Amino acid sequence: MGPHPAVAAIRLAVRRVLHDILDTQPQPPAGDRPLVLVACSGGADSMALASALAFEAPKLGVRAGGITVDHRLQPGSDVRAEDVVLRLTSLGLTPAESVAVDVGRAGGPEAAARDARYGALDAAAERHGAAAVLLGHTRDDQAETVLLGLARGSGIRSLSGMAAVSGAAGRYRRPFLGLDRQTARKACLVQHLPVWDDPHNTDPAYTRSRLRHEGLPALEKALGKGVVEALARTAQLSRDDADALDAWAQQAAQTVRDAAGLLECAKLYALPPAVRRRILRRAAIEAGAPAGALFARHIEEVDRLITGWRGQGEINLPGKVVAQRQGGRLVIRQG
Amino acid sequence: MGPHPAVAAIRLAVRRVLHDILDTQPQPPAGDRPLVLVACSGGADSMALASALAFEAPKLGVRAGGITVDHRLQPGSDVRAEDVVLRLTSLGLTPAESVAVDVGRAGGPEAAARDARYGALDAAAERHGAAAVLLGHTRDDQAETVLLGLARGSGIRSLSGMAAVSGAAGRYRRPFLGLDRQTARKACLVQHLPVWDDPHNTDPAYTRSRLRHEGLPALEKALGKGVVEALARTAQLSRDDADALDAWAQQAAQTVRDAAGLLECAKLYALPPAVRRRILRRAAIEAGAPAGALFARHIEEVDRLITGWRGQGEINLPGKVVAQRQGGRLVIRQG
Repeated sequence: MGPHPAVAAIRLAVRRVLHDILDTQPQPPAGDRPLVLVACSGGADSMALASALAFEAPKLGVRAGGITVDHRLQPGSDVRAEDVVLRLTSLGLTPAESVAVDVGRAGGPEAAARDARYGALDAAAERHGAAAVLLGHTRDDQAETVLLGLARGSGIRSLSGMAAVSGAAGRYRRPFLGLDRQTARKACLVQHLPVWDDPHNTDPAYTRSRLRHEGLPALEKALGKGVVEALARTAQLSRDDADALDAWAQQAAQTVRDAAGLLECAKLYALPPAVRRRILRRAAIEAGAPAGALFARHIEEVDRLITGWRGQGEINLPGKVVAQRQGGRLVIRQG
Repeated sequence: MGPHPAVAAIRLAVRRVLHDILDTQPQPPAGDRPLVLVACSGGADSMALASALAFEAPKLGVRAGGITVDHRLQPGSDVRAEDVVLRLTSLGLTPAESVAVDVGRAGGPEAAARDARYGALDAAAERHGAAAVLLGHTRDDQAETVLLGLARGSGIRSLSGMAAVSGAAGRYRRPFLGLDRQTARKACLVQHLPVWDDPHNTDPAYTRSRLRHEGLPALEKALGKGVVEALARTAQLSRDDADALDAWAQQAAQTVRDAAGLLECAKLYALPPAVRRRILRRAAIEAGAPAGALFARHIEEVDRLITGWRGQGEINLPGKVVAQRQGGRLVIRQG
């Protein structure tokens, strides 16, 4: 008798990613088996991931380890982190360790915790010479990320969610992006794996939590059960589209400059708006505008120097960057 | 004292569109003033639009008329349609007429009603030689349309909502796409215009109604008040992006064919996935696959003949279309 379908599903997802890691990573020195780490919070998604990695890795000659990050945001978080380490150890993961971080304030509580977490995971991966770090994000997380991006209204890049492969040299892998949360929970249940529910996940002070428990269910009620899958597919399609347009803009940016390297308005005008605005955005960032503070409305205003020229003055952008049309050229520089 | 801000806002929106119509439409014969029609259901959005058209058109030498479509879906709909005609007449619109239609069943109740409505509006525009037909869709309608597109999960074209200008020769115009529904309601209220609330708009049997009354409010509660604006901006950005990628795919489709006009797999492989999949989709439609039945998963399967070739057999697509790889060429034809 084979494993429960949920267990088969999580193992298949991990096996595919391990094959891909072995195919694409540089060969380790002879006799050295590559190490793959799992980032584990102790929640159902990452516990399921840890169990599948523990099962699949040995069969492919891969060493499996696990890291849990202690964010130190609640009293007793260190005790809980040690408990997760015990669970990882009992799955047979080596190394299995807890890393404590200091969460700052930049960008809000969720972004600050994320920055601290990835910093710790990066350091752990370097320290252990890991070939990859697996993350337990599911299709449901992906759907939530797309909706969060949608709420920014800043275009298709922000709709593209999380990548299956990300980070320096493709370090981070998300094997469960195509699996739903329910499958991960079920896999823990049938394997008798204890899981821990992060109170942040149900705290309505957090946008993602409100989205998960109120926004998405209401959207499913209105639009039907396929919404999560549709959002996840939108993420993939948007990512491919955004990549193609970025590549086009990068290539076109070379052809619209004069001998002095200035942007020529007439050549910009001839490009599709989607490509032109990407060139303008890139130019503003290169001039020193912080990407996070540069909104669609800023770029639209600069674009009107090209498409609706009526002698406008300088346009002020974030980061003290100024855009100005001079003699058929667009000058974007820090003022 | 000027008009109420809501009235000023609806008038400005209509004035801009009338200017644009006068700028872009072919000049009518001398002495003939162009006619602009408003499509009016008697609801707040289109009544506000009718009132603004009645006010602005004469100042620009434009004749203003109105059409209401009687969908004949409820008893007494003819009486109500005549009532709307009276209201349009009392605003000074000429012609002001009601057109009865038969709503079919194709594509579900909402799509069938829409098809019948646009058919009637097209015919009325032809009959009266109208330069344009104004539609009362607001930014809220646009946000709902984006979410409906999102639920299909079929990519950024379906996220691009309704166009400000659409139809043959840009016949249809949506002056209120940047205004919220509340502004249109307020403008009716302060102008003492009676409005009629279509029971379909609050009937939970309709997807759009559920979205309006449950889905979007829940999403706003989770994500904040800017969601409608963000969705509308997403529509515009997605439209521009989709246009640019379609243009790229159309151009690239010429360069990936051999002397016999067959698609060359090696050349397709070299394109970005977003461009390649658009070429494949277009080729399938040209071979006879109905666009509405062709989903992302179909195109992905055809794409794997290029990117994951391992000797697969024929792939069946909707409309009895078959895709097949033969000697480095992709053959897509009706079987």
